[in-house]
Amino acid sequence: MKIVHFSEVKAEEAYGPKVRIRWLISKFDGAPNFEMRHFEVDPGASTPYHSHDWEHEVFVLEGDGVLRYEGREYRFGPGYAIYIPPNKQHCFINTGDKVLKFICVIPKRK
Amino acid sequence: MKIVHFSEVKAEEAYGPKVRIRWLISKFDGAPNFEMRHFEVDPGASTPYHSHDWEHEVFVLEGDGVLRYEGREYRFGPGYAIYIPPNKQHCFINTGDKVLKFICVIPKRK
Repeated sequence: MKIVHFSEVKAEEAYGPKVRIRWLISKFDGAPNFEMRHFEVDPGASTPYHSHDWEHEVFVLEGDGVLRYEGREYRFGPGYAIYIPPNKQHCFINTGDKVLKFICVIPKRK
Repeated sequence: MKIVHFSEVKAEEAYGPKVRIRWLISKFDGAPNFEMRHFEVDPGASTPYHSHDWEHEVFVLEGDGVLRYEGREYRFGPGYAIYIPPNKQHCFINTGDKVLKFICVIPKRK
């Protein structure tokens, strides 16, 4: 069992200093199937536009942004759930004036 | 791909009317490995104290509560991440005066 406030988990730089990730629940906690991360994206910043062979399940906590997905754009804000299937181009862009925060769950890393 | 505000997803009664669940991202959306649900627990209400052979990965959005886990109790509020391993007794009790809301991810149902 693990119970922790997200702010107690170390924020690590991801793709440079404007995107930060906290591994809230990971394989190192014994999670057998999937891992939960907390992302922060600074205003004007974005995660990389890329694809990979695993899915994302995202829940947006704070801030406003745009999902770029396979060449199209979709606006989102707090309370949005987003499913990104494997092998699809995607990124999350902070289009607001405060930090964008979201949860992103992925399959357990090998 | 799916992008939806949680409020657009139907809230279904779970364990009676005081606990409601929204299947934000499920196998019916094509999710290959795990499913994301949104829970609402009314003040004074609780999910059942039970165990099962799959894990939970939880993120608390709003409200205050207590996790009862294997006979002990742990307080939580917004921003807490909680990992419940398989086969452990647990429940989430709303001890506050507003609706407790959290995300709960589980392995894909068979």
